[in-house]
Amino acid sequence: MNNKIAVFDSTLRDGAQAVGISFSVEDKIKIVKALDKLGITYIEAGNPGSNPKDLEFFERIKDVKLENAKVVAFGSTRRRNIEAKDDKNVISLLSSGAETIAVFGKSWDFHVKDIINTTLEENIEMIKDTISYLVSCGKEVIFDAEHFFDGFKENEIYALKTIETAKDAGAVCICLCDTNGGCFPDEIYEICKKVCEKFPDVTIGIHCHNDCAMAVANTVIAVKAGVRQIQGTFVGFGERCGNAALCAIIANLQAKRNYLCIPQSQIKSLTHVARKIAEIANYKLSECAPFVGRNAFAHKGGMHIDGVSKAPRSFEHIDPEIVGNRRKFLTSEVAGRTTILSMLQKIMPNIEKNSPEADMVIERLKQLEYEGYQFEDADGGFELLVRKTIGKYKPFFELVNFKIIGEQPYAEGQSASALIKIIVDGKTEITAAEGSGPVNALDKALRKALEVFYPSLSQVHLTDYKVRVLDGKTATASKVRVLIESGDGVDMWTTVGVSNDIIEASWIALVDSIEYKLIKDIENKFKAYL
Amino acid sequence: MNNKIAVFDSTLRDGAQAVGISFSVEDKIKIVKALDKLGITYIEAGNPGSNPKDLEFFERIKDVKLENAKVVAFGSTRRRNIEAKDDKNVISLLSSGAETIAVFGKSWDFHVKDIINTTLEENIEMIKDTISYLVSCGKEVIFDAEHFFDGFKENEIYALKTIETAKDAGAVCICLCDTNGGCFPDEIYEICKKVCEKFPDVTIGIHCHNDCAMAVANTVIAVKAGVRQIQGTFVGFGERCGNAALCAIIANLQAKRNYLCIPQSQIKSLTHVARKIAEIANYKLSECAPFVGRNAFAHKGGMHIDGVSKAPRSFEHIDPEIVGNRRKFLTSEVAGRTTILSMLQKIMPNIEKNSPEADMVIERLKQLEYEGYQFEDADGGFELLVRKTIGKYKPFFELVNFKIIGEQPYAEGQSASALIKIIVDGKTEITAAEGSGPVNALDKALRKALEVFYPSLSQVHLTDYKVRVLDGKTATASKVRVLIESGDGVDMWTTVGVSNDIIEASWIALVDSIEYKLIKDIENKFKAYL
Repeated sequence: MNNKIAVFDSTLRDGAQAVGISFSVEDKIKIVKALDKLGITYIEAGNPGSNPKDLEFFERIKDVKLENAKVVAFGSTRRRNIEAKDDKNVISLLSSGAETIAVFGKSWDFHVKDIINTTLEENIEMIKDTISYLVSCGKEVIFDAEHFFDGFKENEIYALKTIETAKDAGAVCICLCDTNGGCFPDEIYEICKKVCEKFPDVTIGIHCHNDCAMAVANTVIAVKAGVRQIQGTFVGFGERCGNAALCAIIANLQAKRNYLCIPQSQIKSLTHVARKIAEIANYKLSECAPFVGRNAFAHKGGMHIDGVSKAPRSFEHIDPEIVGNRRKFLTSEVAGRTTILSMLQKIMPNIEKNSPEADMVIERLKQLEYEGYQFEDADGGFELLVRKTIGKYKPFFELVNFKIIGEQPYAEGQSASALIKIIVDGKTEITAAEGSGPVNALDKALRKALEVFYPSLSQVHLTDYKVRVLDGKTATASKVRVLIESGDGVDMWTTVGVSNDIIEASWIALVDSIEYKLIKDIENKFKAYL
Repeated sequence: MNNKIAVFDSTLRDGAQAVGISFSVEDKIKIVKALDKLGITYIEAGNPGSNPKDLEFFERIKDVKLENAKVVAFGSTRRRNIEAKDDKNVISLLSSGAETIAVFGKSWDFHVKDIINTTLEENIEMIKDTISYLVSCGKEVIFDAEHFFDGFKENEIYALKTIETAKDAGAVCICLCDTNGGCFPDEIYEICKKVCEKFPDVTIGIHCHNDCAMAVANTVIAVKAGVRQIQGTFVGFGERCGNAALCAIIANLQAKRNYLCIPQSQIKSLTHVARKIAEIANYKLSECAPFVGRNAFAHKGGMHIDGVSKAPRSFEHIDPEIVGNRRKFLTSEVAGRTTILSMLQKIMPNIEKNSPEADMVIERLKQLEYEGYQFEDADGGFELLVRKTIGKYKPFFELVNFKIIGEQPYAEGQSASALIKIIVDGKTEITAAEGSGPVNALDKALRKALEVFYPSLSQVHLTDYKVRVLDGKTATASKVRVLIESGDGVDMWTTVGVSNDIIEASWIALVDSIEYKLIKDIENKFKAYL
C-alpha cells in the first residue's frame, strides 16, 4: 500500500467553529499562504453559502498563486424537493470558483429522519444529485459522510449505502466523519478497515473530533486501517473540544511511521507554522502542546536532565529539532547539578562540577523554593540568585525608602502614586510617579530615579506581569509570587519575588529585573573591550 | 474478566513535574481530600527522599482521615553497592509512613547500561532487594517499570525479566510506563496484551505520557488489553506534554464502556473535581478540555444548535450532566437563561421565564464578561449582579474615601496601612488598620468601620484570595481579576472584581462579599419572622 497521505486542513472552516475564533479575510489569506508553503494538500477555507465574508475571501484568493495546496469550498447536499442546479447553497459553492468542493451529507439514518426530517431514499437522492451536478460542472468533489461512525453502528447497511452513492456519483474521496467525537480507536480501526476493503478504488478519508481526547490517536489508527486522507485543524481548535490537531498527526505519521504527508524538507517547519497560525488566530497555543509547544521538550526533574545530557533518547521520544522545536532545561529544586553548573560556568568559566559553590546554590535554591519561589521560568532571577550566593554581586543602588499611596475616590490623574528615594555612589535622588495601581506607580518611580544614573534603563520595558497566590488560607494576607518579564529590544528575561505583601513581592522582582539588565550591559561592554 | 479498575492519581508527584506547577503542603492536602472523596484508589503524593516539603506533607497527612484512597510515596530502587535497608531513599520512603510505596526501576537495558551505568544483573538485584525489603516491612508495593515499552521494543527478554523480578519480590502491581510518551495505541495494545497473558496472577498497570497526543487513547486501549490499574494526573498536567488525563479516561471507561473506576454515584463530580484541582494548582484548565472544559459541550454552529434542541444525541456523544458539566449555546442566550432564571426566582419568586428582567441580566452579564468578569465560580457576586440589575439592591454604606499607604523600610508593625471613612444612615465613621500588604490593610479597615453598625460582620472571615492577570501585555498596568472567598461559619460565598488596579479590583470584591453577608442576614431574619 502506498504511504502518501493527503492532508486536508479545515482551520479556516471547522476551526472557525471554536469559541473565541473568528478570522478576517486578511487572516485567512495569511493562513492559506502558510499552509500552502508547508505543503498541505487541501485547505478548506469556508462555506460560501452561509457567510458573506467567505464569498469575499474566495474572490480575493483567486489572485493568490499557490504552490502546493488546493483551496476547498464547503457546503451541504441540496435541500429537499429542489434540483441541485437551483439550490442556493450549491450555486454559492460554484460561484466561489474553488476547484475542489467538500460536500457534507447525512450517513446516520437517525439524523435523516429526526433532524432533517426527510426519508432515507430522498437523502440518498440528495447526495447523488449534488455530487453528480458538481462533477458535471468540472469540480473535484470530496464527500464528508457526516456522523458516519454513529450511523454505521446503528444502521450499517444505510451508512454504507450513502458512501456507495457518493462514490458512484463521482466523488474522488469519501471522508468518514466522527462528527460528535465519541468514537474509540478500536472502533475507528475496525470500521475504517471494513470501509477501505469494501471500496478499494476510492480514497477514504477520516475526520475526527476530540470529545474523548482521542482525535489524534483515532486519525493515526485510521491511517493504519487504510485511510489516505486526514482531515483536521492545524493546531486542533474547533467546535466543543476541538478537531484532530494536524501538526501532531503529521509529526506522528511522518517523523515516526514513514508516511509522507508533506514534503520531507518541511517537517522542520511544523513548530513554526503551528505558532504562526495560533498567533494569527489569537489563540493561546498550550505550552505543552505535543511536538510544537514551548515546553514539549522541557525537562524539570534532575534525573531527566541528567539522562538527556548523557543521551537525549533517554527521555525524548524524538529529536525536537526534527519538528523545529527545541530542548529546555528548567531550574527547580528537583533539577540537578547540570542546570546549576551551566549557570555557574556562565559566571565563573573555570568552575568544576563538584565545587562547593554548586552545593551552596542548591541549598539556597531549596530554601527559596520552600518559601514559594520558583525559578524554572525565571532565568534572570536565577542568574541573580547564583551571583548573590557565590558573592559575584554588588548592588547598583541603595533604597532609602519608598511610599506608595492609593486612594478612592481619586481627584485627578491615576489611582495610585509612589514616592521613592535612592542613593547611587553617594548621590541621592528622590522622585515620584503615578500609575494605575500601586505596583505600576512604584515601577515607574523606581525607573525614573535610576535613569538619572543609568540611562540604558530607558530601553527596558516590562512585558508581562503575573501574580500567583501561594496559600489562600489567610486570604488577603496570603503569600504571593510575582513574575515579571522584561525586555530591552535585544533580550528578554524573567524575575521573581515572593512575599505576603504584593508590593514587596513586586519590588523584589522589579529590582532583580533592573539589576539583571545593568549586569548584562557591563558584561557586553567588557566583551567589546576584549 | 472483571471490570474493576484501580485509579492511581499522580497529580501531586508527576503533575508537580509540569512547568509552572508547585504545590504548598496546604494545596496538597486539599487535593488529597478532593480525590479521596471522589473515590480514587491511590494518590501518589510525593517523593520524600528528594524533597523536604514532601516529608512535611507525609507528616501532616497522617492526621487526615481518608475514606477511599491510599496515599502513596514514590521513590527509586536502591542505589548500586548498598543494601536496601541502608539506602537513604528507601529509608525516606519508610519514614514517610505511607502504607503503599511506588518504586520505579529500569526496564530498558539501554538506560541500565548508559544512564545509571550499571550491569543488567545488578539492576535486577536492585529491583529485587528494594521490593523485597519494603514488602518485608509490611508495605504494599507497586513497581513502576520505567521505559517499559521502549525497553520491550529493544530487548524484550530483559524488559520482561524486570517485571518477573518485581512480581516475585512481592509487588502487588506492575505498572508499564511509556515514560517518554512515544508509543502508539497499536503498540501499547500488543505489548500490554502479551504482558497480561504472561503474568495473569498480578495486576498490570499503565502509565502514559502525552508527547504524541495519544496518552488518553493509549490508556483506554491498554485497559482493553487487560490492564487493571491506570496511572495519570487528574487534569493531565505533567512533565513536557503532560500525563494521561484521568478525568477524561474515567469518563471514557466508566460512562461509555462500563468499567468501574470510581463509585458510580461520583461520576457526576468529575467536572467539579477537575476544576477544583486546576484552581488549587492555579493551572488554566483548557476551556475545550474533553468532558470537563467549560466549552466541552458548547455549540456555536446554527445547525448544531438546531440539532441539539431537537435531540441532544444528534451532536453530543454523551449527556453533559453525566459528568457534571453542562450544555452551552453560544449564539443564543438560551444558554444562561435557566441559571439566570433560577437566580431571579430566588430574589423574585413569581418571575416568569421570558420576563424583561432576564434579558436585562443577560445583557449586563455579557458586558461584564467582556470586561473580564467571570461568575461561574462567584455565586455571591452573581447574586449581587442580578439584584443590582433588577433594582433589588440598596447599598449598606457609602464610601467617603479611603487611602492606603505602603512603605519600605517600615518602622514598626506591618508593611501597609489603610485609612477609611464611610457613612451609614447619615453617621460617619473614620478608622484605620494595618496589614501585610495594602489589600489586607484595606480589608481590615473596612470591616472595622462597618462592624460599628453591623456587628454580625465579625463572623465573616475571608478564606481565599486569588489574583489572575487577564492581559499581561501592559505588564504592571495589566488588568487583573480578583476572586475572594468568604465564610461565616454557616455558608461560604465567592465574589469577584476586575480592574487595572489590584486595589480597586479587590475593593469591588470585598464590598460585594460584605453586602452579600448583610443581605443574607436580613433574609434569614425575615424568614424567621414569617
